[in-house]
Order: sequence, then structure tokens, then C-alpha cells
Amino acid sequence: MDTNELGPGKEEIIEATYRALNKHGYSDLTIQHIADEFDKSKSLLYYHYDGKETLFADLLQYTTRKFLDELQRSGETPKEQLDHLVDRLLPETIEEDRYSAQVALLELRSQVPYVDVYAEQYTEIDRLFKGTVRDIIEDGVEAGQFHDVDTELEAELLVSLINGMRTRRLTSDVFSVTDAREALSDHLDRRLYLE
Amino acid sequence: MDTNELGPGKEEIIEATYRALNKHGYSDLTIQHIADEFDKSKSLLYYHYDGKETLFADLLQYTTRKFLDELQRSGETPKEQLDHLVDRLLPETIEEDRYSAQVALLELRSQVPYVDVYAEQYTEIDRLFKGTVRDIIEDGVEAGQFHDVDTELEAELLVSLINGMRTRRLTSDVFSVTDAREALSDHLDRRLYLE
Repeated sequence: MDTNELGPGKEEIIEATYRALNKHGYSDLTIQHIADEFDKSKSLLYYHYDGKETLFADLLQYTTRKFLDELQRSGETPKEQLDHLVDRLLPETIEEDRYSAQVALLELRSQVPYVDVYAEQYTEIDRLFKGTVRDIIEDGVEAGQFHDVDTELEAELLVSLINGMRTRRLTSDVFSVTDAREALSDHLDRRLYLE
Repeated sequence: MDTNELGPGKEEIIEATYRALNKHGYSDLTIQHIADEFDKSKSLLYYHYDGKETLFADLLQYTTRKFLDELQRSGETPKEQLDHLVDRLLPETIEEDRYSAQVALLELRSQVPYVDVYAEQYTEIDRLFKGTVRDIIEDGVEAGQFHDVDTELEAELLVSLINGMRTRRLTSDVFSVTDAREALSDHLDRRLYLE
């Protein structure tokens, strides 16, 4: 995957959007907030984007591809890659700016039924994320490191589990990420990892 | 649990709120929309509630308790109760008004980090839901129908799995509820159900 396929000039705009999203959340965010984070001229921003929604759609695409690229380079073995996935998506602690970004992204996701470009992006994210998890599991099975499982079914479980835990973390004060990671680790040990 | 603990008069208001939420979604909903669904006077509504947010908080409490009450009466055996849980939370098809309600609830949930009464309610929902699932699993273990599992850990997995699948269903066009249910059924067969 080529993370630069956004085109020249866009990457800096997307990064400015991410910083603005962290600061202001989703609902209150204006193009002006994004322009404030952007070193170059506001007209350049308008040249590339006609509104908030297409900007956010590109932000989603950009961060997802960057994350999945990183994931595939993150470890020598399929097990290391899955462990990295859990560490990145369910870290023990979240820094404040990352927490704000996750909150903003949950809000954005809740708008999927109303905004077509978000629906396209989240469908693509779901497809790519599940596909990457399935590929890693397949590699593990082929390398004789994982049980000989139904890779499609295991990817379905893992993607939903992580998704559910991340939402609960943001929306429930009784959720314990330590307990969740322990449950997830037990799940992986039993379902996938050999020895 | 007593589902009527909302107090007299409130139940009809909550049901009007639910109908209004189905029709108008979360963001655009006004007290007037709710009053339009309510047979009695608007002043009665204001007598009980000072705004949208406390109304939604009571709606969340009311529907959750009703659901959990129903769940515990839904089957003779713990296995029947868990199967009922999956049928109710991940039905093969969703009627249009229920779909609209789920979309509105996802939007409401995304507001948890900004609205204290939602945070309280979703924390309580998470606590009650996980507690009920854990109780059912405990019953299954005690009755010798389930494997002798760590009930806390199993409840953590099941609640997160269902949560993740419900969010993905609303936000990804490639999500297949049939595949998800198959994966969930396989998960329950291996982790819990004996024979």
C-alpha cells in the first residue's frame, strides 16, 4: 500500500486536520480550526477540499493505511504482529491527545449512517482491517505457528472484539483495559497460538 | 429489577422519546418532536424533564432494564438465555424503525465523553449487561451445562464481541451478520457449551 497516494500537498493538510480534531473534537470543528493548524494558505486547503466531510474521509483513509503499513512491518512473526496490533489498539494507557482523537473518531463513526463519504471510508477500513488480520492469521497457520483455523472466522472475532473493547473503553467507566487485554490474550492463546 | 422505577407518568414520556428518536435521529431531535409523540400536555413533559439529555438518560435506563428483565425470563436454561441474547442483539434482519433507533443510540453513545448523564448511564449499562452475562454463565457452570470457565473473563469477551459486531453492522457495508453470528456461535460452542 502506498500511503502517499493522497497526492502532493494533501498530507500536510491531513496532519493539520488531525491536530485540529484532537483540540476541538468533531462537532465543533470548523475549516478555520484546521486552517489555524496549517502552515500554508487557507486557499490551498480550499483548493483541495470543498468541506469538512471530504477532509475527514481522507484523514480516515490516511491514518488507516499508515497504521496497517506499520502493522505489517511491526514484527518478524505473525504472533509478534498480532501482539503489536493489540498494543497499538488497546494500549494500557492513552495519552491525552490520542484519547481526544479516539473520542472524535467515535463521533465521526456515529455519523456513518448520515454521511456517504464516511460510510465509504468506514466500509473500506473494516474491509482492510479484517483483511490484514486474516492475512496475518493465514501466515501464522502456514508457518505452523498457529492452529489450523478458519481464518475468516477468526478475523471476524478478533476485529469485533477489538472494536467492542475500544468503544467500551471510551464509554464506560467500569471498563478495565487490563481485564480486557487479559481476556484478549487468553482468547489468542486458545484459539490461535500453538505451544 | 423493577422497570417501573422511573415513576408514574414518566413511562409514557420515555416511549414518546423512543418514537421521536426513531423518526428524527439524535442530533436534530427537539423537545417539540417528543411532545408531538406524547398524548398528554407538553407542560407535563417539562414538569418531569429539564432537557433532552435527562430524557435520553432515562430512555437508556428504561430500555436496558426492560431488555435485561426480559433476558432473564427468556429461557429455561442458561444456553437458551445466551442464544436469546444473540438473537435479540444481533438479529438476522432489523426492521427499519429498530435500525433507526440503533443508529440514534450509537450517536448518543458517541456523546458520552461530553455529557455526564450519558456517561453515568452507559457505565451503568455496561456494568448491568456484563453482570447479567456473567450471572448466566455462572448458572451454566453450576448446572454442569457449561465448561468450568473464568466467568468474568468470558463475560468480558462476550460483551465486547457483541458490542463490536453491533457497531460494525451499523458502520460497514461489508459486515455480514450471518458470518458474525456463525463466528459467535462457534465461539460459544468452544468456550462455553458442553457436549
